[in-house]
Parts: sequence; structure tokens; C-alpha cells
Amino acid sequence: MDTLKKNWFTEDCEMWPGGTFSIEVKEVLYSEPSAYQKINVFDTTKFGKVLVLDGIIQCTEKDEFAYQEMISFLPLCLHKNPEKVLIVGGGDGGVAREVAKHPKVKEIVQVEIDEKVIEVSKKYLPFMAVGFDSPKLKLHVCDGFEFMANHKHEFDVIITDSSDPVGPAVNLFRENYFILLKNALKPNGIICSQAGTVWNDLDLVSNILQICKNQFAKAAYAYASVPTYPSGQIGFVIGSLDKDVVFDKPVHVFTEEDEKEMKLRYYSTDIHKAAFVLPTFVKQHLRKVSG
Amino acid sequence: MDTLKKNWFTEDCEMWPGGTFSIEVKEVLYSEPSAYQKINVFDTTKFGKVLVLDGIIQCTEKDEFAYQEMISFLPLCLHKNPEKVLIVGGGDGGVAREVAKHPKVKEIVQVEIDEKVIEVSKKYLPFMAVGFDSPKLKLHVCDGFEFMANHKHEFDVIITDSSDPVGPAVNLFRENYFILLKNALKPNGIICSQAGTVWNDLDLVSNILQICKNQFAKAAYAYASVPTYPSGQIGFVIGSLDKDVVFDKPVHVFTEEDEKEMKLRYYSTDIHKAAFVLPTFVKQHLRKVSG
Repeated sequence: MDTLKKNWFTEDCEMWPGGTFSIEVKEVLYSEPSAYQKINVFDTTKFGKVLVLDGIIQCTEKDEFAYQEMISFLPLCLHKNPEKVLIVGGGDGGVAREVAKHPKVKEIVQVEIDEKVIEVSKKYLPFMAVGFDSPKLKLHVCDGFEFMANHKHEFDVIITDSSDPVGPAVNLFRENYFILLKNALKPNGIICSQAGTVWNDLDLVSNILQICKNQFAKAAYAYASVPTYPSGQIGFVIGSLDKDVVFDKPVHVFTEEDEKEMKLRYYSTDIHKAAFVLPTFVKQHLRKVSG
Repeated sequence: MDTLKKNWFTEDCEMWPGGTFSIEVKEVLYSEPSAYQKINVFDTTKFGKVLVLDGIIQCTEKDEFAYQEMISFLPLCLHKNPEKVLIVGGGDGGVAREVAKHPKVKEIVQVEIDEKVIEVSKKYLPFMAVGFDSPKLKLHVCDGFEFMANHKHEFDVIITDSSDPVGPAVNLFRENYFILLKNALKPNGIICSQAGTVWNDLDLVSNILQICKNQFAKAAYAYASVPTYPSGQIGFVIGSLDKDVVFDKPVHVFTEEDEKEMKLRYYSTDIHKAAFVLPTFVKQHLRKVSG
């Protein structure tokens, strides 16, 4: 049996036993624990700079745009007037970078609990941390639960850019979090949360979709291709207070000129529609989710 | 830096340096070289039985259906009357299993060069090798190039289920192979070939699409999610002699009843349409391909 060479970082997570991804490291740029998690930043031979939290790859310079664009533009393009947006998490700055591009967005509030992630991203991951430079953005270092409990009915769109449901992010996948999200929205508001992948844990996906359906007038699951996430995919749950929303019919339609102007590399109006078309085994499984 | 534990198999391929996938092995069921390649079959902790050729994962029991269904049903559902089908490669039997399901298919001819792959699959991978039991199938152990040179204008659909373009399969990604394919087709015939992934090698994808466009009236690239392939995806080029084909409008449309009857777990008519919707960076890159 083979064993990996030195200078390779291997993911190790209880969530996906039996298979793992490894990445060849040129240089360890940062490796320290924060108050919340172990933070690593690697420079790699083929994936550029890579952010790792608690042993799990969060984003690589090669493919982060796919995730950041999709988690941002899916909900933004489904809301008629997404003027005020809340980002929970997203300490690397990538989601703020994308949200700021949408022409209807006037004000972005971001709450990230771990100041160290912000600092490290500003120093080592400027291609994402550029998002913090937006004049539309107000950044708070605090707990998203507390923040939302004190900010009711304020936001048009709320994006939760969290790590996976092990460790500090586990509470972001529970029903009381989705109740907070709902209450922080204005009428007809929309939320979008990272929601795991169908190949690794279809039950996790159906659980979070069920929670979302319990709290929102409409909910659906969509996915994107991100090679450095487990199974090469990442999924999102989207919940809307507007019962007339049609998830695969975005209300903001972009031309190719718009795509170029916003420097979109993954998201397009057609990709938006296709993201909700699920493989047959997923479609059948998620049909059991009621609501 | 971490190194992998014993009992893990790690892929090692010059085609995708800098990142690699590893899989935990319960038991090595088979490990011998054939006349053409090194064959391994593993029983794994989370992916079931796994076929590995020359160190590269070809299919796992967990996700092989996604690949086999897509490479088969994409071309079959674009041809008005796919009565006679040629499969080149596919020695595990999985593509034959899927092709035999299509109600219009009357006759399947398969040519596989490596008899050992067929034998090993029959012994250890019966969930795929069941494809060899179809009364529609005639299986020949011979070289696909020679076979096609002697069988002109015979087939409605030709599917090339090859390994990646390193080692024995490299010739299946060259222009003279696509000329043979074209000449082995009846009028309005369609071909579908495994064609690499956009995240790993966009130039390989655009090269093979260019070759296909040079030889066929119409050609396009589509993709599917298969977590145990590098980058979690696999792509296909499809070429048609029928200039009126519209790749994202299948002529055979399946109901959910049809899906169940054929035991489809990935492919559906909607998935067919979505498979041709490419992320913006891919769409822009492939636009440079002329024809």
C-alpha cells in the first residue's frame, strides 16, 4: 500500500471516513491556534494559497471563486431588492467580495466570531480579503447568534458561510439558528447556508433541508462543483419567506456583459437554474422532506 | 505534515500533480499485471469494491452508476433510433449494463482489448459485470482501432469508455481515432467519449472538443459529478453527424416511471439538459474552440 510523501497535507475528518484528499505543500505560511480553532495557511504547488481550519480545507486559491460566487449570487438573484445583506462567518472575506459586486446591494453587515481568521486572511489571502475593503461593508467581530438576537427584521438576505458541522460551526446547522435567521429577515427575505454534500451525507442534507422547510415558506437545495471539497461538491440550502419565489428562476438575469463586468468565473443565470437540478437518487431522497 | 496510514491506497498520476485522493482498503482482492496494465481490485471501508488500473481509480461501487449512466444515456437519448450500439473499452461491464436498459437498443457490440479486466470484473465486480449477461450483447476481445477499421457505417451510437489519456488509452484521445469513429457510424450517428475534467486540464478538454468538432457536424462537452474521480467530476465529448441535433434537448424523454423501471439513479431528462450548462470560466475557454 502506498503512503504519502513528506510535504503533503492530508485532510482528516470524522465526517467522511474511508476517503481523503491530500495536497502538496510548498510552504507553511501560518500555523497557530486561535481561541476557536486551529488555523493553517499553506502555499501549495498546484492550488495556490490554501486556508485550513481544524484540519479541513476551507478554500484554495484555485477554486474558491466557485463556492463564494454561488453562496452569494444564488440568494441575491432570487430577491427582488437585496439592499441590505448580512454575512455570518466568512472570515476570509471571499463572500463579502462577491456580495459587494451585486448592483442592488447597498449595505453589507458581516459578523465573524474569530478575529484571527480575518487577520490571517488579510495577511496571506489578499485575493479573498479584498472583500473587507468594500465601502458597503461593516464588519463586526462577534457571535452571529447574539448579533441576530439583537437585530430583528433588518436584512433582505442572510448568507451563512460556515465551516462544516463539526466543532464551532455545529450550532449553525440546528433549528434554533434557522429561527434566528428567519426573525432577522425583513418580509420576503431570503437565506442561504452551506449545507454539506449529497455524496457524503445525504441524511445531513435532508435534515437541514427539513429544518429550513419548517421555518420558511419555501426551501430548496442547490449545489456547485468545488474540487477541493470532499466529493468535489458543495451544497446550499436556500429558504425564502416569499412563497412566490421560484428557486430556479432568478429575478436578476445577467448578460455575458454583466458576467464580465462583475468578473464572475462560475456563476451565470444558466448555472443558477442548473444548480437546482439534482441527480435522481438525490431527488428521490429529498422528496421525503415534507413542507 | 501528515502522512497516510497503512491500508490506504493513494492515487499517483502525472496528470494531476499536487493533489491526490486516498481510499481506505479493507482487503486487496486482486493485484496482478495483465498484458496491458496493472489491475487491482480493493474492497474498501466506505466505497465498496474498487477497480484500479495502473494506479488510477476507474470505478467504485459507491458512485460508478453516475458515470455509467451518463456516458450511456447522453448519446442514446440524443439519437432518434439507437438500435445498434458499439462500446469500445468498458471491460468492467457497467456501460453494457446501462446501454442494454434503453428501450430502443436492439444490438450491442463491445470490443475490449484486455480480457483480464473482463475476467476480474466477472469475479469481483458482479454489480457491473452483470452487463455482460445481456442477450443483446456480443463481446469481442480485440483492439477497437482494428475492429472499427473493418466495420464501416454499422453503428448508430459509439461509446468509448476508456481510462485516462496516459498509458494504453492515449490513442483514444487523438484525431485519427475520431476519424475511425466517424467512419464506423451510420448516417446521423452519435459518439460519446470520456474527455477529462475542466478543473484538472481545461486544455485537454478543449483539445478533444476541437478534434471532435473537426470530424463531426456538431460537438459539445457535458459533465457529471463522480466524487472518486479527480476533482469530483468527469466530462464527456459528444459528436453528432446529424447537424440538427440539439444537445440539451434529448429526443427520448423519460418520465419518473421510466427512471424507476430502468433503475436510473443519476440520469434523468432534466440532468441531461443541465449537464451541458458549463461554469462561466469553462464556457469562455471552450468558446475558443472553432467549428
